Amino acid sequence: MFSTPMQKEGSLAQSLEDACYELAIANRMVAHEGVADAFGHVSMRHPHDPGRYLLSRSRAPELVEPADIFEFTLDSAPVVPPNVRLYGERVIHGEIYKARPDVHAVCHHHSPAFMPYCVSGEEVIPVYHLGAVMGAKAPFWDQRDDFGDTNLLVIKPEEGASLAKALGPHWIVVMRRHGATVAGRNLHELVFRTIYSCRNVEYLTQAKLLGTPSPLNVREIEGAADYNLAPGPIGRAWEYWLMRLGKAGEVPPQAVKPAKTTRGRSFAKRAKSRGAKKVGTRRR
Amino acid sequence: MFSTPMQKEGSLAQSLEDACYELAIANRMVAHEGVADAFGHVSMRHPHDPGRYLLSRSRAPELVEPADIFEFTLDSAPVVPPNVRLYGERVIHGEIYKARPDVHAVCHHHSPAFMPYCVSGEEVIPVYHLGAVMGAKAPFWDQRDDFGDTNLLVIKPEEGASLAKALGPHWIVVMRRHGATVAGRNLHELVFRTIYSCRNVEYLTQAKLLGTPSPLNVREIEGAADYNLAPGPIGRAWEYWLMRLGKAGEVPPQAVKPAKTTRGRSFAKRAKSRGAKKVGTRRR
Amino acid sequence: MFSTPMQKEGSLAQSLEDACYELAIANRMVAHEGVADAFGHVSMRHPHDPGRYLLSRSRAPELVEPADIFEFTLDSAPVVPPNVRLYGERVIHGEIYKARPDVHAVCHHHSPAFMPYCVSGEEVIPVYHLGAVMGAKAPFWDQRDDFGDTNLLVIKPEEGASLAKALGPHWIVVMRRHGATVAGRNLHELVFRTIYSCRNVEYLTQAKLLGTPSPLNVREIEGAADYNLAPGPIGRAWEYWLMRLGKAGEVPPQAVKPAKTTRGRSFAKRAKSRGAKKVGTRRR
Amino acid sequence: MFSTPMQKEGSLAQSLEDACYELAIANRMVAHEGVADAFGHVSMRHPHDPGRYLLSRSRAPELVEPADIFEFTLDSAPVVPPNVRLYGERVIHGEIYKARPDVHAVCHHHSPAFMPYCVSGEEVIPVYHLGAVMGAKAPFWDQRDDFGDTNLLVIKPEEGASLAKALGPHWIVVMRRHGATVAGRNLHELVFRTIYSCRNVEYLTQAKLLGTPSPLNVREIEGAADYNLAPGPIGRAWEYWLMRLGKAGEVPPQAVKPAKTTRGRSFAKRAKSRGAKKVGTRRR
Repeated sequence: MFSTPMQKEGSLAQSLEDACYELAIANRMVAHEGVADAFGHVSMRHPHDPGRYLLSRSRAPELVEPADIFEFTLDSAPVVPPNVRLYGERVIHGEIYKARPDVHAVCHHHSPAFMPYCVSGEEVIPVYHLGAVMGAKAPFWDQRDDFGDTNLLVIKPEEGASLAKALGPHWIVVMRRHGATVAGRNLHELVFRTIYSCRNVEYLTQAKLLGTPSPLNVREIEGAADYNLAPGPIGRAWEYWLMRLGKAGEVPPQAVKPAKTTRGRSFAKRAKSRGAKKVGTRRR
Repeated sequence: MFSTPMQKEGSLAQSLEDACYELAIANRMVAHEGVADAFGHVSMRHPHDPGRYLLSRSRAPELVEPADIFEFTLDSAPVVPPNVRLYGERVIHGEIYKARPDVHAVCHHHSPAFMPYCVSGEEVIPVYHLGAVMGAKAPFWDQRDDFGDTNLLVIKPEEGASLAKALGPHWIVVMRRHGATVAGRNLHELVFRTIYSCRNVEYLTQAKLLGTPSPLNVREIEGAADYNLAPGPIGRAWEYWLMRLGKAGEVPPQAVKPAKTTRGRSFAKRAKSRGAKKVGTRRR
Repeated sequence: MFSTPMQKEGSLAQSLEDACYELAIANRMVAHEGVADAFGHVSMRHPHDPGRYLLSRSRAPELVEPADIFEFTLDSAPVVPPNVRLYGERVIHGEIYKARPDVHAVCHHHSPAFMPYCVSGEEVIPVYHLGAVMGAKAPFWDQRDDFGDTNLLVIKPEEGASLAKALGPHWIVVMRRHGATVAGRNLHELVFRTIYSCRNVEYLTQAKLLGTPSPLNVREIEGAADYNLAPGPIGRAWEYWLMRLGKAGEVPPQAVKPAKTTRGRSFAKRAKSRGAKKVGTRRR
Repeated sequence: MFSTPMQKEGSLAQSLEDACYELAIANRMVAHEGVADAFGHVSMRHPHDPGRYLLSRSRAPELVEPADIFEFTLDSAPVVPPNVRLYGERVIHGEIYKARPDVHAVCHHHSPAFMPYCVSGEEVIPVYHLGAVMGAKAPFWDQRDDFGDTNLLVIKPEEGASLAKALGPHWIVVMRRHGATVAGRNLHELVFRTIYSCRNVEYLTQAKLLGTPSPLNVREIEGAADYNLAPGPIGRAWEYWLMRLGKAGEVPPQAVKPAKTTRGRSFAKRAKSRGAKKVGTRRR
């Protein structure tokens, strides 16, 4: 299995450089798994300073490089004025970090899975064990309640604060006619919740076409979320998404070397030995 | 971010060769993003002569090379008689350029997103902030109204003129049993509107299966379209689609060199340094 | 555009080797475009002997090589007994070639597009201009009418003959709980009809979820089919599918060299010249 | 066609090393064909000891290497204590092997095809000839019946036993709010049933949106399953999925050398000969 400094007790163990590297990977993961396209972004709280967060300059998440990542105050001002364009919707991140000290990573997206719910106002509910990681409730935020007619973006600090208030103690907030925002206690948990809440919603949509699905009950949600948010399942999924990025050429090969195994021979080794030739001759 | 002569004030700054190059890329983009297949085409008004437009010879848009592009008068006659087959439906482009001096780029397509609306006659409406770029209304053109039973193509000048009249001051016209035609004030805006109107319609279809979605209101549409059609969002999406073309080998690598960043190290540089080895050893 | 001996007047111009080569490509095309998976097959009538047809040995169509193709009599017996396994459902091809002298190519498939119609018994109708190439009617064949309960396969000559009778003068027959069989006057037309009838059915399904679509009328079907089955549109689509096979490594590069164009520079040439560097420096 | 020791009479002919190699490939196949993602697993009974089974350490199935595979007793204890994390849900496999001596391979998955049925409780039925391989009935297991509220996982031996009891003499069991588990008499049959039952369910879902599909009748199911589970169809599909893994770089090239054919020239050979140049010059 795959261990990173982030998963260790105490985030101080993670250097800023490593954090930027991981965050770039997380951005590419959610894009590569179909959650984000040209838009959407993943941030994380600064590993050494809870009063700051890390976020890319304005760029499609699939393209984010470690060097694209800048530091921001919780008021979403860049710590060092950059000479590049920044995301307009930074306050989504900053205001959630302000309101929720337990949150260390945030993803905002307009995924095809969630958009039909953003548009129709139908409720998003957890319907299977991996979907339980979204939590029991995903509040629906309608910007009109606080601001009347807007351009539907979240750019002003008060807009971000209103969204953070709607999120409350939950993990996902569905944004009317816009998208969704997801929170996590760390970056790996965030990516896991982001991707599996999308899968949950895809199955929910299909199930609604076939019948009338009900949510998991509270005990099921708590039990399944506890199990799936442990290091084992999260690490297994992270390794999988990382290998897929690697195969697609989206991260350097060094980042995705397979873990060493304890016995036997790998595909690669077998290919070099006589065993490989045996396989070749299996065919008539 | 990515700047092209087209985005500069005054199109005279763009050479004809650059325009053909950009137009070939735009054709490949809409194909690569699932809007066009063997059919469909993107044109642009001639950068130096508003009385002409540029369009490929008859070829699937994913295959268009700069050298495939020819000049046409607004009557859709080739300026120099070519010895290759031309698109039959050129008048779609020519007649819209005639009727709409503000339009500098046109895309005709039969995307899977729009076809169910072309077939069912259900109304296409903007339902989320990026979908607002389609504008408040997408008129429905039924060829039978002017011409009775036809082969459903748009080949005669009067057919193109009828379509342009149906488009009116709007940006998208839905064509009964055929497809859609999209207009833009420049090529980048056109590609953005073409792709995000498809996304909008996909979410609309899903939302209709879940509930009864209503359109954004006029102030939301205007606000969100103004925001998203600014150079920032359009440039960010263009860079994303261009990089995707590059990764797929659809444009030469020179076209998609990543923009220079201001600090830190890129994935590529890290891979060459000791830092890369550190990443490799992170795994147990 | 792309010309093959098959498109010339008189099939005698095409060598048997060329025919096998084209047929292998056609098998790979329908697989690569999502019509066939491990099952399904494309055949063609022998270019020199209308009493024979060409079909691969038993193999997934995406894997068919020219060397896999064998000759069969119209009774679906191999002309030379092969030492490899053959398709069990060869009679689908042989019996249609017997009943329909105008048919020179046949595709049998279980595409995801058609299967919901095979299962539900809902009628397949043409709903857009490219879908018109399926013709006005696709009869539904229910094997039980002639044979009672069966294993749903088409293996006995009388089963093939029953299917061919159901096809009658039409171009597509939908097979209850099984798939579809498509006929063409030549191989390129067949591939075009096979792929675009699938697209038509996908749009029909979506349109049925949104409203109550009706078919094109007879004059529209005839007009649009005439237009789209001409060499121009068919050649353009064939070039597109062939290039896609080439990019995916499914056919040798020699098969997909781009056609020469008449003026200007291609992407490849531009990349070698100073022009390419200019593109690289367009970015800030 | 492709022959493996597993298909021979008597599994003793297959070495343990070959079994691990095949099992790793089977895991990658179901992942590559869209059945599994980061989760899901395929096991097989030990080829020499029916009281043991083989299963990977905890890892996404697409990443499983032969060296990842360990031996387990039917109580799902590792024969040699490993120093790596194991799947939590091993008892799914062990308890089915205990209850069903005829079963030699098991796949547990949460495929997008089945999940809407796991969520809605709608019945999964076979609706086309290849879908017949799922058998006439796929029981629905609701964990609450035996255990009340749980975390929805199957971790305790009694949970696995309850699932195995629900499976009974059938081949697939649908698990409420969780996924599905599939059994096979050998590994190739298992993979075939797993993938084609997913296809069957996808078509069933679409057919339910169009009309009211009924299942195949018992004679159709038996006839079609007998035909499709014979070595011919299973071997043809296995070769196809293996070649697809090979093209995607998921198995070493040695594993997917094409079978020798009996006559004519392959694409590769033609490309080296003058024939290839002829193809190149076909284009104008």
